[in-house]
This record gives sequence, structure tokens and C-alpha cells, in this order.
Amino acid sequence: MPVPAPNLYPPFNIVRLSHVEYSVTDLGASRAFYVDTLGLQVTHEDDARIYLRAMEERGHHCVVLEQADKAEVGVLGFKLYDEPDLDKAAGFFALRGLPTEWVERPHMGRTLRVRDPWGIPLEFYVKMERLEPIHQKYRLYKGAKPLRIDHFNMFSADVDSAVAFYNEIGFRVTEYTEDDVSGKIWAAWMHRKGGVHDVAFTNGHGPRLHHTAFWVPNPLNIIDLLDLMSTTGYVGNIERGPGRHGISNAFFLYVRDPDGHRIEIYCSDYQTVDPDLEPIKWSLTDPQRQTLWGAPAPRSWFEEGSTFDGIKPVPSALTAQPIIAP
Amino acid sequence: MPVPAPNLYPPFNIVRLSHVEYSVTDLGASRAFYVDTLGLQVTHEDDARIYLRAMEERGHHCVVLEQADKAEVGVLGFKLYDEPDLDKAAGFFALRGLPTEWVERPHMGRTLRVRDPWGIPLEFYVKMERLEPIHQKYRLYKGAKPLRIDHFNMFSADVDSAVAFYNEIGFRVTEYTEDDVSGKIWAAWMHRKGGVHDVAFTNGHGPRLHHTAFWVPNPLNIIDLLDLMSTTGYVGNIERGPGRHGISNAFFLYVRDPDGHRIEIYCSDYQTVDPDLEPIKWSLTDPQRQTLWGAPAPRSWFEEGSTFDGIKPVPSALTAQPIIAP
Amino acid sequence: MPVPAPNLYPPFNIVRLSHVEYSVTDLGASRAFYVDTLGLQVTHEDDARIYLRAMEERGHHCVVLEQADKAEVGVLGFKLYDEPDLDKAAGFFALRGLPTEWVERPHMGRTLRVRDPWGIPLEFYVKMERLEPIHQKYRLYKGAKPLRIDHFNMFSADVDSAVAFYNEIGFRVTEYTEDDVSGKIWAAWMHRKGGVHDVAFTNGHGPRLHHTAFWVPNPLNIIDLLDLMSTTGYVGNIERGPGRHGISNAFFLYVRDPDGHRIEIYCSDYQTVDPDLEPIKWSLTDPQRQTLWGAPAPRSWFEEGSTFDGIKPVPSALTAQPIIAP
Amino acid sequence: MPVPAPNLYPPFNIVRLSHVEYSVTDLGASRAFYVDTLGLQVTHEDDARIYLRAMEERGHHCVVLEQADKAEVGVLGFKLYDEPDLDKAAGFFALRGLPTEWVERPHMGRTLRVRDPWGIPLEFYVKMERLEPIHQKYRLYKGAKPLRIDHFNMFSADVDSAVAFYNEIGFRVTEYTEDDVSGKIWAAWMHRKGGVHDVAFTNGHGPRLHHTAFWVPNPLNIIDLLDLMSTTGYVGNIERGPGRHGISNAFFLYVRDPDGHRIEIYCSDYQTVDPDLEPIKWSLTDPQRQTLWGAPAPRSWFEEGSTFDGIKPVPSALTAQPIIAP
Ligand SMILES: [Ca+2]
Ligand SMILES: [Fe+2]
Ligand SMILES: [Fe+2]
Ligand SMILES: [Fe+2]
Ligand SMILES: [Fe+2]
Repeated sequence: MPVPAPNLYPPFNIVRLSHVEYSVTDLGASRAFYVDTLGLQVTHEDDARIYLRAMEERGHHCVVLEQADKAEVGVLGFKLYDEPDLDKAAGFFALRGLPTEWVERPHMGRTLRVRDPWGIPLEFYVKMERLEPIHQKYRLYKGAKPLRIDHFNMFSADVDSAVAFYNEIGFRVTEYTEDDVSGKIWAAWMHRKGGVHDVAFTNGHGPRLHHTAFWVPNPLNIIDLLDLMSTTGYVGNIERGPGRHGISNAFFLYVRDPDGHRIEIYCSDYQTVDPDLEPIKWSLTDPQRQTLWGAPAPRSWFEEGSTFDGIKPVPSALTAQPIIAP
Repeated sequence: MPVPAPNLYPPFNIVRLSHVEYSVTDLGASRAFYVDTLGLQVTHEDDARIYLRAMEERGHHCVVLEQADKAEVGVLGFKLYDEPDLDKAAGFFALRGLPTEWVERPHMGRTLRVRDPWGIPLEFYVKMERLEPIHQKYRLYKGAKPLRIDHFNMFSADVDSAVAFYNEIGFRVTEYTEDDVSGKIWAAWMHRKGGVHDVAFTNGHGPRLHHTAFWVPNPLNIIDLLDLMSTTGYVGNIERGPGRHGISNAFFLYVRDPDGHRIEIYCSDYQTVDPDLEPIKWSLTDPQRQTLWGAPAPRSWFEEGSTFDGIKPVPSALTAQPIIAP
Repeated sequence: MPVPAPNLYPPFNIVRLSHVEYSVTDLGASRAFYVDTLGLQVTHEDDARIYLRAMEERGHHCVVLEQADKAEVGVLGFKLYDEPDLDKAAGFFALRGLPTEWVERPHMGRTLRVRDPWGIPLEFYVKMERLEPIHQKYRLYKGAKPLRIDHFNMFSADVDSAVAFYNEIGFRVTEYTEDDVSGKIWAAWMHRKGGVHDVAFTNGHGPRLHHTAFWVPNPLNIIDLLDLMSTTGYVGNIERGPGRHGISNAFFLYVRDPDGHRIEIYCSDYQTVDPDLEPIKWSLTDPQRQTLWGAPAPRSWFEEGSTFDGIKPVPSALTAQPIIAP
Repeated sequence: MPVPAPNLYPPFNIVRLSHVEYSVTDLGASRAFYVDTLGLQVTHEDDARIYLRAMEERGHHCVVLEQADKAEVGVLGFKLYDEPDLDKAAGFFALRGLPTEWVERPHMGRTLRVRDPWGIPLEFYVKMERLEPIHQKYRLYKGAKPLRIDHFNMFSADVDSAVAFYNEIGFRVTEYTEDDVSGKIWAAWMHRKGGVHDVAFTNGHGPRLHHTAFWVPNPLNIIDLLDLMSTTGYVGNIERGPGRHGISNAFFLYVRDPDGHRIEIYCSDYQTVDPDLEPIKWSLTDPQRQTLWGAPAPRSWFEEGSTFDGIKPVPSALTAQPIIAP
């Protein structure tokens, strides 16, 4: 299926991805990972939850860690432009027959909970509690010095359809991988906020969350994190990288949290605000697609992911396989 | 005057700043500076003009150098979102009694030339010739490895009014400097594309262009440029920096081209896409405003700038002075 | 066998490793690799040979490329402290019954050619033609911006004996790997010039040259080289890395030249001038020994190397195996 | 006076500079500066003294801070190669009629205290308590991530004579500044350990200690320190930089401790182990001598320094002046 033309006048205005809620099985272990190692800042914590933000964010949180019996993903959050966009979003999802619900969420204003057509739990809001800037409080920087949440990457059992749906609500494709045999889209990167992506979809057992990415200043911060993790008991949590992606041209590292939730540390992609930006097409058989420098990703990277609360993933009908490390 | 509330529904949709046209008195000398030293890529050149783009840009040009008897600035260009925005822009400027003209411009589609209320020549367009991506042609990177044009900074003889006007057409204030005595805005930074600014205004003899800035990957690219310039005959063209701005938190360097046009090399500011982003206020007497590390800017930096074609600058009524290096 | 105590009063004074002579089968292809890609500077070339130096070196060459039918290593060169050291070296090798010869070498003063006990061809000299400094000619920097030759790494079929011999001539062990089972030294790093090593020995089919390393300013130069190689036809020449070594704590990348000679790009090890520096011991079974971040080296890295002119390598009796990538 | 030929066979073997003892007037304030800000590690502390080491050092200390009524410098320490060197040093200084004394120093073996001909207190030792490596304990890195002490820079009222004396004891000149008018050496950089210098002498009211320098991994660590200092109350302690020196080609920053002792943060000079390394000559009137990028140093940098315990500095007869910032 060809990549759809961008929808320049979407039904409601999404500004950017905003936050993710992770269920974790040991809140203390997760705190050691996200706070003491990655370097996110605690904005609120109690016995059940820890709220985190990155260094240049003024919204209350980009990650919520919630103590639970099972590790999964509660919701993916997105910020909308203005209050009317919330009502337009509710109308859009209702018209599609998708679940919608107005929910109370701490630190947030009016919040709309929906499910996408495959059951991924999403929430939309306009107002979140705003905090004082800390990006110039350099005493607080540590770990990878995460500046902001950058994107979500999801396994999808039907990437063509996922791209069509998210394109309709305004996400624009910047790069994509095509399966040369079937002509289907094997993976796609789609943005709202002007970088390579706010969301990406990869063919596989889905829906599942493949990873959440955080933006850091430069590749040396990623090297700092590798040095720190490998000398503080986290060497086994390093899954892939460092490297430069062919797709997105970003410098990356993938690590796993104590429950296996995958986190990408990411920097150096490019600006995509032009509405006529031409998507870049890659072949699934191009060995430089994943890593410009040629190193293949490990099997775990293609197979493992976090389930979403309340949704059982299904296999993809598209069986085309990428290059996997031996 | 207080900073105005952002106009979330502007009369037409500006995507980003796009390009600048510089008149230069020795095209060969300018080529040596912009191409061989800064590292911009030539996309077209003839005896009269050189068109340049930065490494991640796909539009045909971000700088036009034009051979002339006098060094000045021809026009500041901005990309609009969609064709109807061009007509809305024409209507907006006409309604204000400001000059408007549809012009033919090489490599560009329909182009609207206007003047802002102080006479600054602006041009708006939607379509510019698109070129192949070169951001992964690493053999081409050189000099400061400029990735994209980032912003224009202008002297204004009435910053309060300039902020009001540009706010009305959708630019949103991210940071500003207030003169504590008069309560007037002494300088302001305003964006469309999600960084700290597409345009900034500084109190002074205006209108004049203070500088055009280019984004580079990280501070080491700025250090590379300093090393290169200081050993290839350009040591006298280094005006200020390197340093970190208090305002914007960006890492910067200011250099002068062979005609004295000021170029900033810039990186590491922050994402500003939230429409409810609170502007950060600085006092004119704060020594860390200009440079977080405390070093004052030289007198030339506050006094010298490039005139715009056809407009004679006037003094500002606001005589409040920043901290200037001895 | 335990690591020997350093010999603080060696029979002659070696200052540092100096140069390597590589036989290559296509001088033009090698020039494209070493000069246009790595960024070494040509100091002399003719139809048969190319002499190269790195950016902060003032001696005439650190690499000699020689057109030949077969790719191998001609000689490893070392600079001695003063003229009497040359005669002391000749006496030392003669006394051992090892081959010695005074040879004429272009661009070099009195030069002593010897073989070590395993046949590795070495040459010692005091004076080499000195060139003007170029370390501040920043226009010349390119590729990985190599600053100086850093070390040789050799396969040895008897590392314990190699360490004993090179220790006797003044090389001091900084780090080593022990085979826990046999108690033998599996690999050792030994220096003269105050870094982690001028020479290293690794257990294997030997003697062969495993690699020659060049020092670069920082890890970002290694990333630049990866980006350049992977977009100019050299992606298949990237063998291992980037990563941080456990041993030496250096940041590294291994690439192969067009004939398969292995080159390491290296930075960030530590100062070792203290004569009482305690060697650091690593276990062969420690997965962080090779790469602090845990990634194993590929099989080729353990098995392939360059033969020395005139010497047929033999297998090692020590069959202990390191961790190899699947 | 011309630079003397290097003394390749000095009377005793100095390995490197080792440590400095600073008297400080508020030990707590100094701890906040050296430990919490610069990032040195405490190896011992009590009410009267704090001992510090940098991240790759295994000797017990490179800085001793001592509570006192007056801020000055107690001693400059140097490590010798072997025990006999200590006795040779004692003989050398005694023969010159200079003060010598064997002293007891905590954490150190046999220690010889002497004065140089101008009264600078020096101490020589071979053995200092050795500590476990911490260079791979990345959790401990902070501030500028100092790796090792690099050099001392001293004001001298007679640089020609200082160079002659330190040359005699084995320090080799790498770069120097000549006063074109008098032909005298205005400043000189001299090394033992293979970098640009262990000691430097600058013309001025002397003897005084101009600064002690610490080596950091790369320029971004210096930028990190600037960001930290300028947002934690130390903006007034930033004196000069960042910049690249013409002399030494190093990247630098000068800061002042709470008592005014000057500390340089330094990286990226070059290897100087060749005994035939030709010194690089600079003219006092070359504006790129101090900073390759052209920025002059402030007046304080040329005039202020720390006195040595027991010695009153005297003016220099050489009145030639460098370029000073307005
Ligand atoms: Ca839940
Ligand atoms: Fe990602
Ligand atoms: Fe700017
Ligand atoms: Fe190596
Ligand atoms: Fe210094």
C-alpha cells in the first residue's frame, strides 16, 4: 500500500506525544533505573506511583510508574492544541464507534480516554499542571541528561491500516520501510511536533509498545549512560547500540527497564515541519536501514515488547522478516 | 508593556523562517566564507548569485548571496503551510495598508512580497523547488556542519510594537527581556516552528538585521569552526563567543561575513511546541541574560547590523542600555 | 605465569612505537582508505610507496604503504632515546643470537633491523626526518582526525614468553588477561610512552599483527568516521564497535583496510607514567573485559590478522577461548 | 636568551608533577568548590585538611587543602622514578647551596623538601600510598570529571634563569614566548611526562603560583563545568575562557577557587615524548598566542597569583607587556 498523502486539516489538533504510564512490579527498582540511572526528575511520588519529567519539560510528567502485579502499559498520552480539540476528538472517536470516556487524572485538566481501532489506550488533554523551568538548574542533570520525551514505537499487526488511521488524525509520515515482495508498509515513522516521529509502527505481534524514547543533548550523553549502566549492575539491561539509525539518522541506544519495558535514548534526528516533506522510503532488505553502520539488531529487539492494559496482541499476517543478528 | 497572550488562531499559517537574501560586494569572498568555511552547500550559482542550503534542508535555498555595490539585506523569507494561507496573508497585509506584491522568484512557486509596518521586506511562499536529501551524504559535511537555518534577529526601534505585530501573525514569545525602569520590552524571542525562535527583536537603531543563525549538531562543531576560522585568515571575523546564552539556553558563536553581515552558529535550545508555554522573563540588568557564564557582549554586537533594502533605520526612543564589555 | 616486575633499567631506551610498513595490493585503493577516509596526511609518495603521518606528528611517517603482490606487514618501527641506545640495542639482540642488521631507510638516520625471538621484524632508530607542525593547520583535518599512532597489537602463540621478552627491554605491563584454568597470561598490554600500551599481545596463531591503532581527539571523531565509511562504500569494512574497552577504558572502533589489515581508532585511555603503576588483572571469562558495555567481539576479530614478512605463524598451545559473538 | 638544548641525562629522574598543597581560609567553602563543583574525590579528610585525587590517579592525592589564616601555596610536589633518584636530588640541591630537608609527610614515603633558587618550595618522593582504581566507577564522576593533575604555571621574575635551572633538572621546553625587543624568554612550557608541560613560567612579579591545571576528557566537560558554576553561585569565579590556547593547542578554562587560587581545566594538548621535539616559538605580540581564536586575557589573569609559603615575590626587570583585554 502506498504511503497516504498527509492530512493537512485533521479533525483535531494533536501537538505532540506527552506521556506514558508503565505498570511496574517493583517501584523501588524502577526508581533506581529511571531516576538514578536515566536521570529523569521526580515531580510527585507516593507508595503507588512515581511521576517523572525530563529536564526541559514544564508539564508535570512524561512518565508515570505505577506499582502493579504485572508489567504492562497503562496508556499513551498526547497533548492537544486547544480545548475545542478535545471535543472534536471525542466526536471523531465516537463516530468511529471507538470507546471514549472522560476521566479524572491527577495533575491534568479535562482528559479524554479512548482506544484506537486495535485497542491501544490513548488519552488526550490540553492542560497539565505546569512546573517551574529546570533546564538551567545544571546541578540537577545526571545520567543521560534526558531533555524530553521524544516518541512511542509500537508493534502493529497491520501497519498499513495503522498508518492510514494515524495519518487521518494528522500524523505525517517522514520515513517508512516497504516489504518489496508484498508492497506493504513494514514500518513507518509519523510526526506531529516537527521531528522524525511522535509515533512509529513496526510489523509484528501487536498491538504492543515496542519502546518509548527520550531525547538527550548529544551522543556523548549516550556514551555516559552506557558507562554508568555497565558499572552499576545494568550491563544486562543494554540491548542494542549505540549506533546511528539509517532511518531517522538519529544516534540511538536501547536499554530495558527492570521489568523489560524498552527505553530508547535518542538524539540528532532532523526537522520535519514542512508540510510537503517527502517521506523517505527504505527497503526491508537494506542492511543499513536499522543501523547506518551495518550492525543488525538482536532477535529480542524484533520480538519483545510491552502489552497494553486490557488488549491481547495478535500475530501479523505479514511474515516478511528483517535482517536479524545471528 | 506586558507580553501579549499568544494568538492561537492567526490570520494565516507561517510554518517557519526559510531564507535570507544578502547583497554582498565580493561574491567570491562570500563564497569562500559561506561555502568553504561555514560549510553550506551550493545549489545554484551564476555570475550574479549563489544559492545555498544547509545539510538537512530539502528546500532549494536558505541563503541567497547576490553581488551588489552595497552590502545589505534584500528580503527575509518565510514558508507558509498551504496555498490558501498565501491569499490570506495578502489580504491581511493589504487590510493594514502595507505594501503587497506577487513576485516571480527563481526556484519558488507563488511568492508574496510585503513590508512589515517598519518596512522590513518579507516574502511568503508555500512551494520551493525540493532537492534530494543530503543529510546522510557525510562526505559533504564540512566547516561547522550547518544543518538548517534557525532564526533571524532584528534591531527594532520599537520592540513592544514589533512583538504585538508578529504576535498577531502567530509568532509566540518564548523569552523576553524587560527594561525594569520603563517596563518596556527590550528584546523578545518568538517562534513558529517549535524552537526558541524564528524571529527575535532587540532594541536599537532599526529596523536592521542583527543576524541570521544556523543550527549545528553540537558545541564541538562550533569549536571546529573557531579552529578553522582562526587558522585560515578569519580570526578578525570572530566577534563574540563561544558561550551559552542565558536566554534560550543555546550554545552560540557570532562571526561576521566578509561584508560584516553577522552570522550566528547555534545549537541546543529547547522544544517550544506547547501553545501554553510560559514565556521566561529576564531583566536587562541581569549579567547572565546574554551569556549564562557571565561574559558581556562587545559594543559592536549591540551597535552594528545590516540595513534592509530601501529602508533607513531610525533611533529607538528607549535608551536603556544592556551590559557592554569594556 | 605471573606478570613480571617492570624492568626499570632496561638495556636500551625505547621512547615509543613509531611506524608500521604495510604491503598492500592496490596502492590507489589504500590511499583512498588511509588518506581520504581515515584522514592521514601524505608526506611522500611515488609509484611504489606512500608515506603518511598523523596530525600532531613531526616525524616523517607513522605508516608506509608499499605496493606488493601480497598483503602483509614489513616491519614495526620504534624510536629510541639517543644514539648510544642504538648500539646497546644491537648488542642486546646479537647477544641473544637474534638477527641484527644496519639498514638504509629513506627519511631515517641510522636504523637497526632485528627480529624478536618469534621472528617479528622490528626496526629501531633515533633520528627521522622532522617536518613542520601541522596540528594547528585545521584546514587539513578530515576523516577521523587522527592525531598520532598509538599502539601495535600482535597475536602471539606464547604470550607469557612475549611478555617476559618485551618486559626485559623495558615495556611495562598496564593490564592483562589471565586464563583462570591454566594461570597463563592470555593477553597483555605494555607501554613505553605513558599510555596503556605501545604493544599488546593476544593469544592466538602467531606471530601476526592484529592491528595498528591511531589516537583521535574524542569519541565523536569515531562516530564521524563511522558515518563517513558507511556512506562511501566502506560499510563492509567496519568490523567491531564503537564501544568502550573494559581493558584500557578506551573508546574504540575496528575497521579493515582494503587488504584486510585491521586498524583501530582509539581514544580516552589513561596516563601510566608512574613506574610503580599496578597492572590491572582481568579474567578471560569476564564479559566486560573486551567491551565494558558487554557486547562480544565477532569471530573474525579473534581469528584474522596480518602475517609478517618472512614468518609463518604457528598455533598457540593455549586453547582457552574468549567470549565470541554468536 | 635562546632556549637551552634539552638535558637528556639529568642529575635525577623526575617522572611528573604530582601534587599541590593549598592553604585556604574556609575549608568548607573549598570543599564545596573542589569536590562538589570541580568533581575531585576526597581520599582523606579531617578538621584541618582535605586530600583529593582525580579520577584516573592511583596515588593518594594531587591536592591537599589545608585550613589556614592566609591563602597561599605550601608546596609543589613531584614524583621521582626510583629511590636512588631521591638521594641524587638531595645531593644536587645541596651542591647548589639550596635548602634541603627530609620530611615526614602523611601517605607518602621518603620525602625531600627543597627550595628552588627563587625560593619555590618543592617536594620530591618516590612512593605515595596507592589506592584502588576508580576510573571505571562511573557513578563517581561529576563536575568537570577531572582525570589527573596536569601542570603548574608559575610567575617568574626571571624566566630565562628559571628555564635554565629547570632544563638542567630534566624539564624539556615544548613551546615558548620570546620578547622580540629584548630577545628574552617571556614565558616557557616545560615537560617531563610527555605532554606540553609539567611546569610553565610566565614573566611577572614572582615567584608566585599562577595556576594548577587538571586534565578532563574533552571540551564538553569544560562546558558542563561552566553551566554548573554559572548556576550554583560561582559565576563570579569564572575568569577566562573557554577557548583554545595558541600555545599548547589545548582547550582551556580558568576559574578561581573561593580564596582566589586559580585553577585551569584543560584538555587536548599533544604528545611530546620525542627527545628531539623542536620547541615552538611564539612572539609576545602575536594575538593568537594566548587564545588561538583571538580573545585577549583579562588584566587579572596577568597580575594575580598565589604566593608561596615563606617567599616574598619581587618584580621582574622585563617590562614587556602582552596583549591585555580592555
Ligand atoms: Ca492500570
Ligand atoms: Fe525509536
Ligand atoms: Fe540568535
Ligand atoms: Fe588496540
Ligand atoms: Fe596552564
